[in-house]
Amino acid sequence: MLYYLFDYLDQHFSLSGAGLFRYISFRSAMAFSFSLLLSTIYGRKIIDKLRRLQVGESIRDLGLKGQVEKTGTPTMGGLIIIFATLIPVFLFAKLHNIYVILLIVTTLWMGAIGFIDDYIKVFRKNKDGLQGRFKVVGQIALGAFVGFVLYFNPDVVVKEKIRGEQVVKIEQLADYRSDFTEAHKSTKTTIPFIKNNELDYASLISWMGEGSKDYVWLVFVLIVIFIITAVSNGANLTDGIDGLAAGSSAIIVLALAVFAWVSGNIIFADYLDVMYIPNSGELTIFLSAFVGGLIGFLWYNTYPAQVFMGDTGSLTIGGIIAVLAIAVRKELLLPILAGVFLIENLSVVMQVFYFKYTRKKYGVGKRIFLMSPLHHHYQKRGYHESKIATRFWIVGILLAVISIVTLKVR
Amino acid sequence: MLYYLFDYLDQHFSLSGAGLFRYISFRSAMAFSFSLLLSTIYGRKIIDKLRRLQVGESIRDLGLKGQVEKTGTPTMGGLIIIFATLIPVFLFAKLHNIYVILLIVTTLWMGAIGFIDDYIKVFRKNKDGLQGRFKVVGQIALGAFVGFVLYFNPDVVVKEKIRGEQVVKIEQLADYRSDFTEAHKSTKTTIPFIKNNELDYASLISWMGEGSKDYVWLVFVLIVIFIITAVSNGANLTDGIDGLAAGSSAIIVLALAVFAWVSGNIIFADYLDVMYIPNSGELTIFLSAFVGGLIGFLWYNTYPAQVFMGDTGSLTIGGIIAVLAIAVRKELLLPILAGVFLIENLSVVMQVFYFKYTRKKYGVGKRIFLMSPLHHHYQKRGYHESKIATRFWIVGILLAVISIVTLKVR
Repeated sequence: MLYYLFDYLDQHFSLSGAGLFRYISFRSAMAFSFSLLLSTIYGRKIIDKLRRLQVGESIRDLGLKGQVEKTGTPTMGGLIIIFATLIPVFLFAKLHNIYVILLIVTTLWMGAIGFIDDYIKVFRKNKDGLQGRFKVVGQIALGAFVGFVLYFNPDVVVKEKIRGEQVVKIEQLADYRSDFTEAHKSTKTTIPFIKNNELDYASLISWMGEGSKDYVWLVFVLIVIFIITAVSNGANLTDGIDGLAAGSSAIIVLALAVFAWVSGNIIFADYLDVMYIPNSGELTIFLSAFVGGLIGFLWYNTYPAQVFMGDTGSLTIGGIIAVLAIAVRKELLLPILAGVFLIENLSVVMQVFYFKYTRKKYGVGKRIFLMSPLHHHYQKRGYHESKIATRFWIVGILLAVISIVTLKVR
Repeated sequence: MLYYLFDYLDQHFSLSGAGLFRYISFRSAMAFSFSLLLSTIYGRKIIDKLRRLQVGESIRDLGLKGQVEKTGTPTMGGLIIIFATLIPVFLFAKLHNIYVILLIVTTLWMGAIGFIDDYIKVFRKNKDGLQGRFKVVGQIALGAFVGFVLYFNPDVVVKEKIRGEQVVKIEQLADYRSDFTEAHKSTKTTIPFIKNNELDYASLISWMGEGSKDYVWLVFVLIVIFIITAVSNGANLTDGIDGLAAGSSAIIVLALAVFAWVSGNIIFADYLDVMYIPNSGELTIFLSAFVGGLIGFLWYNTYPAQVFMGDTGSLTIGGIIAVLAIAVRKELLLPILAGVFLIENLSVVMQVFYFKYTRKKYGVGKRIFLMSPLHHHYQKRGYHESKIATRFWIVGILLAVISIVTLKVR
């Protein structure tokens, strides 16, 4: 909301400094700092409140070292992330921007599902929380909503570079857009290792003939639903040891913030040859606030944790990451960028599959990992929780860099 | 060296993909990934070797929890950082670039001083290591060398933006430089909160009259010496708990990498309104390799540490950060950007000063902190080592963002 205030002050009174609010970079930095300070300063109060309200999530006994100490640590800490993200977004972002609206809805929606789940676990003492199918229905509903909005909203557009042109005449650098097409709707996304790094979802069903055009929206919506469900479950599984999910997510979100900033700026998009997506720059502000919230949460969540994020946190984080990636049309990079989530997810799938397979074949179930998800495997092998978290972060950093590089290789 | 090879292949044979080596962003990402992989994969071998050679640095007993466990942990791990930085630099950077040469010299020089210091501590069993004055002489010598090179080398130049011009005509974006001056020598640096964010070191002595021009080099060299000495000692003091110095430095270096990349690219420098420094973009490659080395080192150094960096690491890190900051003319941002080093340094100065002052006045020395440097104060207060390190990193991240923002506020 401050954006509108300062924009008004700048235009009508030329207030010194008010013009800074025009810059996405400035507002992003403010949103980040504000979010980080909010979460670190008020985080403690929220944690104290949560501890008083909860006896503490009764932790399942996995026979892991140091686990008993964790009894009494409150959960639902995801609330800190949610507040620390939304307040700076309300202050510094353009609230009429379609992408910002979508992300606010995503945060509230997934936050609510996660909260209900945690609530049932903690206060109803029901270990399993919300029944699996309700969670999935919630994720599918969000996916459908996001898919429809992105497909039909007139503000969700791209401008494509007209290639082959070398000489560009421009009057003012700020006006520079002469070799881009007009803004238009598109189902194109970014994919590495392919010519121009682009894939049009419409082409997936073009073999169906002329009539296939009528079903492109369906393909798109289904893909969005799949991605949101997959990523939010991935984040959920990754949340198992102190600081792991928050830190890994901060790294992924930071990489997405770079994509959003570059994609939303025609000069950078042109120079770096990525897809230009008008209005998407505003996402950087949401992303910066979100990174600030995640890092501020980490202040309390890093080993030894004073609070856990709970499903309130992990489902929300997953949902936001998925929607962000889709909005900046980098969702096909997620298997690399969010590789940590993928590996964790795969480790569970492989473990379960192999166990069932061997039990059927040999009568006795065997395991690939000492325990799944993967981070528990390393814990069982005697690695310190803190070391596992930091190493997963490092792997996350490497994957983020690799996913950015793939765009250059064409 | 690969740069020259691929440049040759690109020009003479148009080898597909070889052109990628023209991009600083691509080479930086390669340097980072390579450095990270080198340090994580070969780090273990180096650590095993160090452990066999050393009985382990005999740690001073500070009465801190968990300290005894650390006996036997080898030091001199800074060697991992040095190798992991230099090898990718040799492969991916333009080795004729003056800034790259300066940094290679800095790394080897400070690395050698630190190594001798560690060697005396470990193998001569002399706790104090190299005598203080030898260290200082080494730092001063490096400072003088760096100062002279930067002041007199014809490749160290800036191009200044000609302000007040609004309309820019350009034929090709790649040729865009019409509203910049010709490259010229300059003692200007960046300073926040001042008009145009610029300070000319020459102006510091202009009150001396016309003849002052002859002494500008002296002022500049002295400033460079001061900064290198201060930052390398700051890094040295910060190296006290697992992962603290490596993580904090990685954050500082990452921010400097952003400055270097932007400062070395005329389009970005123009758009973001920072000083344009021709050739400085190549620093990004050094920086990326260095960040990769630091993070790779962190793989083993994070709590519980399997290796310490020793002075081999900390002095080198401090020297590199100082020279980098000076090269991209952002050294006056260091009190904010490297604020963690500064706070640690100040905590020691304050502690010693206050102790001496109270002892003189009241006969009994009092302390401000339970122990200095600051990280030990928190350790004494019962915070877990791992938590202190992560929180210092978070403070470092906030400071890095603030130091970048200051440039926007003018």
